[in-house]
Amino acid sequence: MPAIITLLTDYGTRDSYVAEVKGVLLANAPGAALVDVTHDIALGDLRAASYLLSRVWERFPRGTVHFVVVDPGVGTPRRALAAEAHGRFFVAPDNGVLSPLPADARFVELPVPAGASPTFHGRDVFAPAAAQLVHGSALTHVGHLITDPYRSPLAAARRDGNAWVGEVVYVDRFGTLVTNLPGAAPGGRIRVGGHDVGALRLTFGDAKHGELVAFVGSGGTVEIAAREGNAAQLLGVAVGVEVRG
Amino acid sequence: MPAIITLLTDYGTRDSYVAEVKGVLLANAPGAALVDVTHDIALGDLRAASYLLSRVWERFPRGTVHFVVVDPGVGTPRRALAAEAHGRFFVAPDNGVLSPLPADARFVELPVPAGASPTFHGRDVFAPAAAQLVHGSALTHVGHLITDPYRSPLAAARRDGNAWVGEVVYVDRFGTLVTNLPGAAPGGRIRVGGHDVGALRLTFGDAKHGELVAFVGSGGTVEIAAREGNAAQLLGVAVGVEVRG
Amino acid sequence: MPAIITLLTDYGTRDSYVAEVKGVLLANAPGAALVDVTHDIALGDLRAASYLLSRVWERFPRGTVHFVVVDPGVGTPRRALAAEAHGRFFVAPDNGVLSPLPADARFVELPVPAGASPTFHGRDVFAPAAAQLVHGSALTHVGHLITDPYRSPLAAARRDGNAWVGEVVYVDRFGTLVTNLPGAAPGGRIRVGGHDVGALRLTFGDAKHGELVAFVGSGGTVEIAAREGNAAQLLGVAVGVEVRG
Repeated sequence: MPAIITLLTDYGTRDSYVAEVKGVLLANAPGAALVDVTHDIALGDLRAASYLLSRVWERFPRGTVHFVVVDPGVGTPRRALAAEAHGRFFVAPDNGVLSPLPADARFVELPVPAGASPTFHGRDVFAPAAAQLVHGSALTHVGHLITDPYRSPLAAARRDGNAWVGEVVYVDRFGTLVTNLPGAAPGGRIRVGGHDVGALRLTFGDAKHGELVAFVGSGGTVEIAAREGNAAQLLGVAVGVEVRG
Repeated sequence: MPAIITLLTDYGTRDSYVAEVKGVLLANAPGAALVDVTHDIALGDLRAASYLLSRVWERFPRGTVHFVVVDPGVGTPRRALAAEAHGRFFVAPDNGVLSPLPADARFVELPVPAGASPTFHGRDVFAPAAAQLVHGSALTHVGHLITDPYRSPLAAARRDGNAWVGEVVYVDRFGTLVTNLPGAAPGGRIRVGGHDVGALRLTFGDAKHGELVAFVGSGGTVEIAAREGNAAQLLGVAVGVEVRG
Repeated sequence: MPAIITLLTDYGTRDSYVAEVKGVLLANAPGAALVDVTHDIALGDLRAASYLLSRVWERFPRGTVHFVVVDPGVGTPRRALAAEAHGRFFVAPDNGVLSPLPADARFVELPVPAGASPTFHGRDVFAPAAAQLVHGSALTHVGHLITDPYRSPLAAARRDGNAWVGEVVYVDRFGTLVTNLPGAAPGGRIRVGGHDVGALRLTFGDAKHGELVAFVGSGGTVEIAAREGNAAQLLGVAVGVEVRG
């Protein structure tokens, strides 16, 4: 299986930062395939980064290294981490962005090499570690084990009588509201931010033009969309708003 | 020749959708080279997607698979297709986005696997098929032949006395108006939306700063640009506007 | 070492231009790894392109070919170049975009093949040459040596008594002002556009929320940022503004 490194950052795509990281990766891990998850995370938006990571990490084959660097605290004493879960590897700052990893994930603290830029650990700390891991270094070869990584899990939905109560956890580029209501659970009507969007339907293709529709999305939870429209704008709803179903 | 899969979608680059597709591709077709054509197609803009596909598909070597998923009807009964033309392969919804393929292209209908998300056929239907094709599966191995794919060809230019009459088929990021007037044909002055932009010149380097200029573009048809300016904005012209030359 | 070609252009990512180039590269250099530096350079902004090139070119291993096509003069008589420096190769128009290359770089003029589109030398002139170079062709095999490439180096900082005087050379997506003041030099307070931003600190993590801070950036020169803010907007400062320190 060829070596794969994915990249998930808030670096944007107009500066040199992503390419500097890729230069270090390819200089140290010749032949690795590099896959951009996204570089368009809003500055320091750890919640969005965690959500996207939760969607993609297990889609990639074992041995893949996920470079997850949304790092508003770069240059502060926050730790630099590497991790392993279900055969995939991760490098990331210790700020909760790896919270989607399962309970049996293992974590190490990465050393910061002498001469590393205090403002660009992506290039000088995380990229060299990712290159080592993708070439088969053991996790404990790149750092020392720790048992207390910072975790800030996404809010879980809860039961409230016969209903589930959760929240909007992500809004995608289509304006679709992704919630944490489990797809299998709800039987009644879905309400978000005080609006009734009706019972679950199979897909937004079942709605009329512009109509709001709730369905089980491709991540397995309830989503609310407007057919050929933007549900977030129509409803004035953002991440964190309560959803019931 | 190494395996190549290109991707042309309206998924955008800030969500997890492109990476989820790439995870499936690399898990099923290890070592394939993935090339983004664009993910910035306006939502559901089949005409733009078709135009871009027409520009790129034959530039890639034989064996390349083009993943072309602009799919406003995902989850409706529209068919899922794979196709083959001149040694290149394609996966796409049956909505006309493959209209640029030549008349001798062959088409199959792809089965929708049990458990496929009704809203994400890119990941669950098209990506697995693309992975099979890039590894050498015959077209008829991934689906059953059909002879009636939906085709909505780009409008062709026509003769009108000594002139050609066509239309603007695409506006690029520079504001250049791409038309369907054949580059070899026009001898007279070019008019677009009522504006006379003069006789064909060799290149926009032949125009003065800000001046409008018509020339044969890199796709072989007449284009209209403003040197160091934006012709679409200057002229107030969009896709579909008549062009004569 | 596998073949690597990086791409740095102002083509944008919504049209077919980047993919057309990549199709030519992969058809002529099968198996090459393609790395996007950026395609979001402002139209014709040679200074930004040169700056980004200066940041990345030596990060990539020897043998890498850098495709650097910001080419407002395409179709005019400006020459098309290839170059070699420290084991890396370059293709670019002769408009100064390769000015960051060291004094011992060697340059050749590329021939323009018959039939090349006058408006798309990236695809028809530079991509074929890049493919030849990445497969080991000698520089002098792809063109004839020249000794007078156009060079427009970035302005250098100068001493003024005990202080250094330089300028802002780049503004990144975070609004950070990158200057050409050498990181090792300043001992006093940093002033930019008439604003005193204090003495150098180690990193922006040493500043309070929203506060301006000067530090030695990841490129080795002085940078000015606002913690969790946008220094360029706060100060109303752009490329070219004087900096003292």
